[in-house]
Amino acid sequence: MTKSDYTASGVDIDAGNKAVELMKAAVKSTYSPEVLAGIGSFGGLFDAGKLKSMDHPVLVASTDGVGTKVKLAAQARRYGSIGHDIVNHCINDILVQGARPLFFLDYFATSRLVPEIVAAVVGGISEACREAGCALIGGETAEMPGVYAEGEFDLAGTIVGVIERESVLPRADIRPGDVVIGIRSSGPHTNGYSLIRKIFQDVPLETIFPELGMSLADALLAPHRSYYPLLCPVLNDLKGLAHLTGGGFIENIPRILPENTSVAIHKDSWTVPPLYDLIQQKGEVAPEEMYRVFNMGIGMVAIVAKENVSKVQQAIPEPTFILGEVVAGERKVTIK
Amino acid sequence: MTKSDYTASGVDIDAGNKAVELMKAAVKSTYSPEVLAGIGSFGGLFDAGKLKSMDHPVLVASTDGVGTKVKLAAQARRYGSIGHDIVNHCINDILVQGARPLFFLDYFATSRLVPEIVAAVVGGISEACREAGCALIGGETAEMPGVYAEGEFDLAGTIVGVIERESVLPRADIRPGDVVIGIRSSGPHTNGYSLIRKIFQDVPLETIFPELGMSLADALLAPHRSYYPLLCPVLNDLKGLAHLTGGGFIENIPRILPENTSVAIHKDSWTVPPLYDLIQQKGEVAPEEMYRVFNMGIGMVAIVAKENVSKVQQAIPEPTFILGEVVAGERKVTIK
Repeated sequence: MTKSDYTASGVDIDAGNKAVELMKAAVKSTYSPEVLAGIGSFGGLFDAGKLKSMDHPVLVASTDGVGTKVKLAAQARRYGSIGHDIVNHCINDILVQGARPLFFLDYFATSRLVPEIVAAVVGGISEACREAGCALIGGETAEMPGVYAEGEFDLAGTIVGVIERESVLPRADIRPGDVVIGIRSSGPHTNGYSLIRKIFQDVPLETIFPELGMSLADALLAPHRSYYPLLCPVLNDLKGLAHLTGGGFIENIPRILPENTSVAIHKDSWTVPPLYDLIQQKGEVAPEEMYRVFNMGIGMVAIVAKENVSKVQQAIPEPTFILGEVVAGERKVTIK
Repeated sequence: MTKSDYTASGVDIDAGNKAVELMKAAVKSTYSPEVLAGIGSFGGLFDAGKLKSMDHPVLVASTDGVGTKVKLAAQARRYGSIGHDIVNHCINDILVQGARPLFFLDYFATSRLVPEIVAAVVGGISEACREAGCALIGGETAEMPGVYAEGEFDLAGTIVGVIERESVLPRADIRPGDVVIGIRSSGPHTNGYSLIRKIFQDVPLETIFPELGMSLADALLAPHRSYYPLLCPVLNDLKGLAHLTGGGFIENIPRILPENTSVAIHKDSWTVPPLYDLIQQKGEVAPEEMYRVFNMGIGMVAIVAKENVSKVQQAIPEPTFILGEVVAGERKVTIK
């Protein structure tokens, strides 16, 4: 074998350093006064002094990825929007327990590091963090030839938030008679993309479907929205929140139900956006499978005591849907 | 196109659920009383009530991966040990700022989910977490056909720890005259594996090299050790710690140096383990490149005031090495 250096083995330390340079300003724009050290130090430091003024702080943490939506994003070269996806997905995952985001860390790994792509992804991450008042205090960029297919990358993230112990959702008093409210998703968010990609494998992303009124790329790559600004003001009036991620209605809603409670969803209580009809028809997907894989236009579900429904609906500055109700029965969701 | 369901698209939700079942007991074994909810809930909940009794708590967080060591681990089917790698790597990354680990979250993604492999990896993660008194409160397992090369997987993790603000390392008073102490690594840890794999690409992992006294698999897959139990008792007597990860001596030590201080390392102050000689010779790697990619047998470097050196060395229950000293000059490392 001839003379080796690290670049010849497929790893370019200088490309990594260039990526760090390119993303520095974006990352720093997310810093709150709580951030004591970030880029360059081994760990991110977040001043938790303010937690001392809480009655009983509980940290809430979640790690997630964006699934194979990364493949579509790479194909369409929409690197910034996939950054929004991962941050907002994580924000929503801790919001369902009532938590306010404190800080975020990202993980980006690829077959071959292109500094400009990393910078664009981290730019999107930074933007979404800034919007949520969440500091981007760390992350890792890895070049892994041979693990990732040529030209592919993966993106994951971890969020840490905080909540008063007595305010943690779901509350224990979810019971028959409570109302199930749904809030619009901005698209399939980050779920069902392996199936979506299979169904549309022969369709160019720039194809405009009349029923969608936009290109396939625009419909499929709409970034995951954050429900934090919308729901933050009403958290105290909710009994529980379920984020409709992988597993759709069927697997996510039961996660917050106590024993012997069931949820009945009425299919006609909202209009399923045309994208899902297109997916179902083109892929000949069984109707019940659709509700197990996709959010069907509803990204977040809230359980609310009957007497609080109009107060909650009025406080949320966009139309919401009364999807159904909590009933007695086996811990599951029925959709009729 | 024929009838689709999610399994046909390459994603098996049931395999994911089986993986969760298999890993449940291991994950739960890491739970401290602080863990309020884990598996099944959207975010992991960690009771931070005890932080209120601290003077000024600072949270320290780090995300990292294990690099292409995952490829070797997969090849040798050593899934548990790679779990130790990711946890201990993260523990060391926050230890250099003085932090004690609180909780950990993992990210495992692969081309095709094999529940038994995920369970073995998470088993190793759980074991390492338990050893450090760190709770495994969350994680994500993703099946991503087409992003990962067939049969490949990636593993990343995020740790969150805590430290009193006034005890954060490095201290600001690192100055010429301070002593640089090195502690043994257990192998290349998780760095330099793309180069290692290139150099040994034609050598079966079970090959026994006489100079190593063990198989190539044993030498290359020795799990990253945690320095937390070793260094925890002496943290107050240290001025700084550098974890020799990617970038080796050359890039990691300067990260903790103040302006106008330099570090001089004496090459003959420790014996470089035979594995690195083998790598250098077989790969014809330039000597200076070795110190930029590998830890050369030293996994952690401590900077200590001269008067504390013997106290620190005596308190660490294994031989350590006086590698060199802090000198005036440009912020860099020279190795002679």
